[in-house]
Amino acid sequence: MINVAIAGYGNLGRAAERLVKVQPDMELYGIFSRRSELDTDAKVFSLDSVAEHADKVDVLLLCVGSATDIPEHAAKLAKLVNTVDTYDNHAHIPDHVKAMNEAAASGGNLAVVSTGWDPGLFSLNRVLGAAVLPEPTQTTFWGDGVSQGHSDALRRIEGVRRAVQYTLPADEAVEAALAGNGGQTGPQAHKRSCYIVADEADHARIEQEIVSMPDYFEPYDTTVTFISDEEFEANHTGLPHGGRVITTSELAGGQAIEFRLQLASNPDFTAAVQVACARAAVRMNADGRTGAVTILEIPPYLLAAESLDELIAGI
Amino acid sequence: MINVAIAGYGNLGRAAERLVKVQPDMELYGIFSRRSELDTDAKVFSLDSVAEHADKVDVLLLCVGSATDIPEHAAKLAKLVNTVDTYDNHAHIPDHVKAMNEAAASGGNLAVVSTGWDPGLFSLNRVLGAAVLPEPTQTTFWGDGVSQGHSDALRRIEGVRRAVQYTLPADEAVEAALAGNGGQTGPQAHKRSCYIVADEADHARIEQEIVSMPDYFEPYDTTVTFISDEEFEANHTGLPHGGRVITTSELAGGQAIEFRLQLASNPDFTAAVQVACARAAVRMNADGRTGAVTILEIPPYLLAAESLDELIAGI
Repeated sequence: MINVAIAGYGNLGRAAERLVKVQPDMELYGIFSRRSELDTDAKVFSLDSVAEHADKVDVLLLCVGSATDIPEHAAKLAKLVNTVDTYDNHAHIPDHVKAMNEAAASGGNLAVVSTGWDPGLFSLNRVLGAAVLPEPTQTTFWGDGVSQGHSDALRRIEGVRRAVQYTLPADEAVEAALAGNGGQTGPQAHKRSCYIVADEADHARIEQEIVSMPDYFEPYDTTVTFISDEEFEANHTGLPHGGRVITTSELAGGQAIEFRLQLASNPDFTAAVQVACARAAVRMNADGRTGAVTILEIPPYLLAAESLDELIAGI
Repeated sequence: MINVAIAGYGNLGRAAERLVKVQPDMELYGIFSRRSELDTDAKVFSLDSVAEHADKVDVLLLCVGSATDIPEHAAKLAKLVNTVDTYDNHAHIPDHVKAMNEAAASGGNLAVVSTGWDPGLFSLNRVLGAAVLPEPTQTTFWGDGVSQGHSDALRRIEGVRRAVQYTLPADEAVEAALAGNGGQTGPQAHKRSCYIVADEADHARIEQEIVSMPDYFEPYDTTVTFISDEEFEANHTGLPHGGRVITTSELAGGQAIEFRLQLASNPDFTAAVQVACARAAVRMNADGRTGAVTILEIPPYLLAAESLDELIAGI
């Protein structure tokens, strides 16, 4: 059994806890947190005490934020144990790989970095699609799903009591991409749909502020729907997301590769990929590999609980 | 530059030839064939002479049939050079892996086996989907596409002059799978659509023979359309195919992973995967790996022409 520990207990950490418990080959060692009281029946340890437990933990899932926690803590932890993180700041991933590579290697550990779905399974499918189809045209669509950043922007408008923003792929752009005319980005490829709870007297002004907000909404086909508090509570408190990567090639005469995710819960799915990568981290490290790796470097069979022979029998 | 040679010059070999020529990091060494006259400007060598060229060939694409050629020739060739094959007899893949593993290892070579799309990219996505989603329900749909075996069965009916059979996924089964109610197979999940050229006097009898043919058509929702020779020539001589792998999980609360291919030409796409795997074969062998591997064992970045650093920068 693989002893898995979790650092951080927000949406991602709680999802990881549920998922580790249902794996046939994993046991939950405990949760490392800055808080001492967590609503869990798992063992809880201080985030400062990882070093004391390192010899009993096979892999630590870093379920902490990409904005400040990963840059501050991840490398220190990778010196102590094998880690899997979901660092998602695309522009800084090369620097993150470098920092984690040095830290993990110095401790004889393996760090799987920037897993999840994007970066993660989407990255993998972009690489696969482009490797297979010559001179590829590639388009990534996000949605249907909640954008946290855009929802925050809505909530900063005066008079908005509750708000959520769904990003939707534009149907015409998806069809064009599948037909070989891809490459759309941003407002060409996506629409924005906002659900707002606010006093009726403010509706007209709020809608005007939203659709004229530069960068966030103004360039997009944006719809605003005002709903009641009850409807918001009933239908708009989840964190669904999803998207697709479409690769086509003129040189390959209209072939299309599409990878699509429909995620009922964004953090649950991110955690699911992270848990599968934990298995690979332990196996690769046991095989002598140290430093940092992305999902692009993991032989896929190492993600599965089954043996390679079992997988090949069902290939 | 990677020196790539091709064994066999049917649909698959010709597609591989075109694709090798457009790769930035490959050169076509030549084509090994049982025939001495081929309609190509590449160098042509006898299939019996691979040993004489082995030190100049980095990898040999085995573009020969799975029924008899691969079982007869593949292991002998894998002793001489790195190989990539598209052996697609699912039930016998474990035996094929074993035979190729022994042969390739004895020659210090690497054999990538059973690549293409199914087995191949579909196998990879079945493993990825099941590794990520706990207690997965998984459904593979084939089509829209030409089934060679079923087209052959049509052509054996008396009076049929030309015939093609398209396999189509049943829309209801696809929707059910995406909604988490997957697991359909065979006639539950697929329809069959036949296009036939025949004398009008034979139409009624031929249609009756088709829809009552056991196993092939009788259990399926089968439609038969009689068309003219001209229409057949204009619209039904290609080899399109495709399909999708859908994975869902109740434990992950309605998450869905879908991998979908729309292939304008089945052999062209199979060759495209084979060519990408050729890159991995050479790199893994240069790194000391010998024996046989499936696509499940290849770190995905080895399939791409770009360096790992370039790929990570675009992750």
